[in-house]
Amino acid sequence: MDSIKIFAPGTIANVSCGFDILGLCLDSVGDEMIIRKTAKKGVTISKIVGQILPLETKKNVAGVAALALLEKVDSDCGFDIEIYKNIKPGSGIGSSAASSAGAVFGINKLLGEPFSLAELVPFAMEGEKLASGSAHADNVAPAILGGFTLVRSYTPLDVIKINSPKELFATVIHPQIEIKTADSRSVLKQQVTLKLAVKQMGNLGGLISGLYTENYDLISNSLHDEIVEPNRSILIPGFDDVKKSCLKAGALGSGISGSGPSIFALSKGEETAKEVAKSMGEIYKNIGIDFDIHVSKINQEGIKILK
Amino acid sequence: MDSIKIFAPGTIANVSCGFDILGLCLDSVGDEMIIRKTAKKGVTISKIVGQILPLETKKNVAGVAALALLEKVDSDCGFDIEIYKNIKPGSGIGSSAASSAGAVFGINKLLGEPFSLAELVPFAMEGEKLASGSAHADNVAPAILGGFTLVRSYTPLDVIKINSPKELFATVIHPQIEIKTADSRSVLKQQVTLKLAVKQMGNLGGLISGLYTENYDLISNSLHDEIVEPNRSILIPGFDDVKKSCLKAGALGSGISGSGPSIFALSKGEETAKEVAKSMGEIYKNIGIDFDIHVSKINQEGIKILK
Repeated sequence: MDSIKIFAPGTIANVSCGFDILGLCLDSVGDEMIIRKTAKKGVTISKIVGQILPLETKKNVAGVAALALLEKVDSDCGFDIEIYKNIKPGSGIGSSAASSAGAVFGINKLLGEPFSLAELVPFAMEGEKLASGSAHADNVAPAILGGFTLVRSYTPLDVIKINSPKELFATVIHPQIEIKTADSRSVLKQQVTLKLAVKQMGNLGGLISGLYTENYDLISNSLHDEIVEPNRSILIPGFDDVKKSCLKAGALGSGISGSGPSIFALSKGEETAKEVAKSMGEIYKNIGIDFDIHVSKINQEGIKILK
Repeated sequence: MDSIKIFAPGTIANVSCGFDILGLCLDSVGDEMIIRKTAKKGVTISKIVGQILPLETKKNVAGVAALALLEKVDSDCGFDIEIYKNIKPGSGIGSSAASSAGAVFGINKLLGEPFSLAELVPFAMEGEKLASGSAHADNVAPAILGGFTLVRSYTPLDVIKINSPKELFATVIHPQIEIKTADSRSVLKQQVTLKLAVKQMGNLGGLISGLYTENYDLISNSLHDEIVEPNRSILIPGFDDVKKSCLKAGALGSGISGSGPSIFALSKGEETAKEVAKSMGEIYKNIGIDFDIHVSKINQEGIKILK
């Protein structure tokens, strides 16, 4: 196999009470990538379609992730990457993670899979480090492993795939506004009360339990974030109205996707997820902010080979 | 049925990263209680064997829990309670919870079960309120429901039974020292960093996941409490040595049981749990502190009817 074409999915990180640890993989939105073996060693990015992003290997998240992998394996060839972007950078649904994860997944396949899927996560994290300054795993892990993933620990890195209930669907709306990373960080409070931390842990435990037992009521009751959302949501115009409207439309819960501005909702069944999409869209139509909207099942397998 | 004899089990609350929310039910240590219908309405405590505790209904945790239940149901009779204590008050393995839970479980049975097991939890919590000033559920819930339980929320009360892996055994050592409740509270820090809270949540998510998937390595990797244990353990002489020794003896993890002074360990298999008991005991023999020690499977059913 000399080339591979893949679908590199969008992801939702910071799933409510799972701030910084819980992510999920989307199915209906993602980039396509073509990766080819080249005679010349090293990594090139020959084409990026759909977004203006650096082609220089060391300045591109896919390039940096690919180089991190190649440092750990003997390869007698190099690799060229083409990226067809459908995920908008800065949307909060894992644009950089898709490219980073896709690059290492594709190269690993072309090399005959010297690494397990879990072993690819640290390489992809190097792309995240380039994108945001922090080598976080909560987008690249679900992109690579699929389903819901928990980053249990960073030292050592321990990523766990959590069961995804079959009827769970995600709705994600991306209002076309820009939130500066510096702002989304500066509103985060670095101290929390023990009481609030315990409350959030109760919900996290409930959510994980609900995912394993496929108990949609428990999932719904647990989808709360009282630590980060109250502070970050003020950066997203219309957030409270969107949340209210999608709960009214039948969503199990709703929150900020990643660090925003996208807002996600989880629903039982595709029909409800579509109703939720409609209700979310109405809010931004009224406000007068353009938006993209996606309804997606949970992508159980992560990155997919297209041919 | 005019009388019932029950086994009211000990429990471990604050299971490592599950501070204030995660508890488990023991099988080899617990009180016995006999509850009888009486012609006269109300609740009497006629006998307490094994410990000196108040017989006056409103000053006894079992009495207060029983009264809380009877307030919510029409009963044409009253109830008398005898308690045979095997769990030492102040040991940290749910002495007051066993009595509170046992009283409401027994009376509910004699009344023909007007309440579900989950509905009994708030009544038993009234006993806990008398004992400690706070109506916590993390001991009474596992005593009543059995297995591992998660207190997802107090408002509204939502208690979830979590799967217990079959080969999981608990070892609990009770060094015969007294820790004042005021001290165990005053060492608790009321603020935690967001970073530490996220780390603890990763472990809680890992532990819950490990319990459902019966993944003993994951359970072991997740059994850490970096928020409460570092502060509270200084009140327990020998804690660090006990913890080290039981990990060396093969335990999956170890921590403070409730608010101490008991220390628990979880192990895969009874044999390892017994080895762990031996190693824990050695430490207190060397220090010169008397101790009780229990090795127990996880009690899946909670309170048991003895005849």
